[in-house]
Amino acid sequence: MHQDPLAITWLGLAFVSLLGLIGRAAARGVGQPAVLGELLVGIAAVNLAALGEVSLTKVVTGVHEFANLGVILLLFLIGLETRVGQMLKVGRSSILVAVVGVTVPLVLGLGSAYYLLPQWGLTTHLFIAAALCATSVGITARVLKDLGRIEGREAKIVLGAAVIDDVLGLILLAVVSAMASATDWDLAPVLKTLGLSAAFIGLAIAIGPFIVRRVIAAFQFLDHERFKLFFSLSFCFAMAWIASEIGLASIVGAFVAGLIINDEDFGKKDQENETLEQLISPIEGFFAPVFFVTMGLRVDLGAFFSVEILSLALALTLVGIAGKMVCGLAAGRGVNRWAVGLGMVPRGEVGLIFAAAGKALGVIDDGIFASVVMMIVLTTLVTPPALRWTLGR
Amino acid sequence: MHQDPLAITWLGLAFVSLLGLIGRAAARGVGQPAVLGELLVGIAAVNLAALGEVSLTKVVTGVHEFANLGVILLLFLIGLETRVGQMLKVGRSSILVAVVGVTVPLVLGLGSAYYLLPQWGLTTHLFIAAALCATSVGITARVLKDLGRIEGREAKIVLGAAVIDDVLGLILLAVVSAMASATDWDLAPVLKTLGLSAAFIGLAIAIGPFIVRRVIAAFQFLDHERFKLFFSLSFCFAMAWIASEIGLASIVGAFVAGLIINDEDFGKKDQENETLEQLISPIEGFFAPVFFVTMGLRVDLGAFFSVEILSLALALTLVGIAGKMVCGLAAGRGVNRWAVGLGMVPRGEVGLIFAAAGKALGVIDDGIFASVVMMIVLTTLVTPPALRWTLGR
Repeated sequence: MHQDPLAITWLGLAFVSLLGLIGRAAARGVGQPAVLGELLVGIAAVNLAALGEVSLTKVVTGVHEFANLGVILLLFLIGLETRVGQMLKVGRSSILVAVVGVTVPLVLGLGSAYYLLPQWGLTTHLFIAAALCATSVGITARVLKDLGRIEGREAKIVLGAAVIDDVLGLILLAVVSAMASATDWDLAPVLKTLGLSAAFIGLAIAIGPFIVRRVIAAFQFLDHERFKLFFSLSFCFAMAWIASEIGLASIVGAFVAGLIINDEDFGKKDQENETLEQLISPIEGFFAPVFFVTMGLRVDLGAFFSVEILSLALALTLVGIAGKMVCGLAAGRGVNRWAVGLGMVPRGEVGLIFAAAGKALGVIDDGIFASVVMMIVLTTLVTPPALRWTLGR
Repeated sequence: MHQDPLAITWLGLAFVSLLGLIGRAAARGVGQPAVLGELLVGIAAVNLAALGEVSLTKVVTGVHEFANLGVILLLFLIGLETRVGQMLKVGRSSILVAVVGVTVPLVLGLGSAYYLLPQWGLTTHLFIAAALCATSVGITARVLKDLGRIEGREAKIVLGAAVIDDVLGLILLAVVSAMASATDWDLAPVLKTLGLSAAFIGLAIAIGPFIVRRVIAAFQFLDHERFKLFFSLSFCFAMAWIASEIGLASIVGAFVAGLIINDEDFGKKDQENETLEQLISPIEGFFAPVFFVTMGLRVDLGAFFSVEILSLALALTLVGIAGKMVCGLAAGRGVNRWAVGLGMVPRGEVGLIFAAAGKALGVIDDGIFASVVMMIVLTTLVTPPALRWTLGR
């Protein structure tokens, strides 16, 4: 009998979509963000299956490309939602909050990883610390919106800082990845990656919009109804490829592509139709959950039966909360500093992408991965009620 | 430097999306169906690249999973657009036209393949003949719509017959695939596949809708906004997997899933929103072109520098047109038989899927594949002007 070599992929997509559906619905039911439901349902499924001695590894491998497509599209959307101009003028408070919010967790994360995992190398410690630096603006934005505080000063500072954190985080990811690939402790590749990242992002932001507008104008004679969707996705994938070719993470390219391209770049004809975000959301909406559910499917709770891993998870969570709370102090006078600090706490999808990158490079093992995921779940869980509490006072 | 192992996939998606954009716009410009533009731009690209001694094989391999996702979603959509009840009562004319339209090209195709390619085995001849049996209803429907004749009797007969052809064709594909995998000439696996196909499609149609409605009702307590999209896609992938597990093509499963599931199966809450077709089209719309462009990228025009292949392509095209024209005679009195016969001529996407399946199984080589693609392109090219001519008289 012949069998479709992609059969396991179709099974995987069926299984993961259904899990995502259940996870999101459950999260919604208890007022938690969707990404948390997707992660937790994945964790539950893989560990229940393990109890019955069923391995889901094949399923995870089968949907690998689709999960990665999900992250690429997610970062492209985040980039689309970030306006460079807006990012540059968020003001001193946001920049200070962002820098403190990256530096403190990085230092504290490095310290605790070094203390708790002395047998692992510097790159492992750095990956753990990098995952602590991320800020997932989506979750905070949602809570602030629900509370009717999205237009407040605290919201503006946090959202601005979170965007700067994204850029700083992606540069950090590039640097840490370069270090992980270097054979020995050497500053050259790190400096090279740092230079490349800065040049790539800087050049893209400086001349990218100009070039993109020109290319779109040149292609505009193609009178096609779906020009906007296909052109922008093609651009996103091309930038992901370029980033990867110069040694950066492909998601950095997708993010920068989103930063560069604009609805206004397209002719009037296309502007009247849906926005880029509306066009891409249905596709991203199907694939991003594949990523989050499979991340959950990679977490072996058995790993927690070790004192080392359990204390690492707890330490990372505490450092993760404390490190971001500190940056509320940088917010200046006249604002609710608690709210700013708490708003920076959730790691969500961005921290997860870091942990996944470290795992793919082999510098983070199953136990450490599980601890990082636990830190992400806990920091994300704690934020909505805490924010409601401090803003409700 | 670390590099994303999926870098070539992102490059491939960027390249293929851009090619698709150009191909569709060009096809639109000259009033041809989009699928033709996608195929031809792929053929042009790979052969121009070959002149510059650049191989695009890596690109095609890199987007393989996404191209296959495109076909799965395409067949699911075709299934969604097919109502079983409607299919069963299209009347005697459609059934006769469908059966003649499958039988005559099959016999003529087998004959010419046997005559022109005596050194190849029966399964190769059968795959070539099977690709000749397909009818792509989309292209005819489009032309009839443009001419304001979609409500006419000829249109009803052709659309009904094309749907029956889809089902007959998919069963034929299952049987031919089983024969290709059998080590020697043996009726047992063929009969087994025939039985399995009939049982799978029959059972699915008979009890599938009942089960699906029950499962949806059971899951409906999950109060989730995107329930309809995720549940139906999960079902589509699950059926693709089941079909593959019992030795049928995964696209048969996706098609049957589309036959079974209905907008009416979902609660009122979901019915008020978009239809299943509206929900799935944006995702299908991005991936199906990946399939068609990569099919074009597999056509080596160099293969035509052989008398054997060139005469095969011409013979298949003639047989492809004549074989379907004959079935117009089965349409009965009082209708434009030319219009019915011509309406059945285009092969489009369905014939292409057959050729691709044969290539994946290794019973169709590059030269034969190129001939089949040429037959598909020519039959599809010839239909719109010929239909306009006969209906315009």
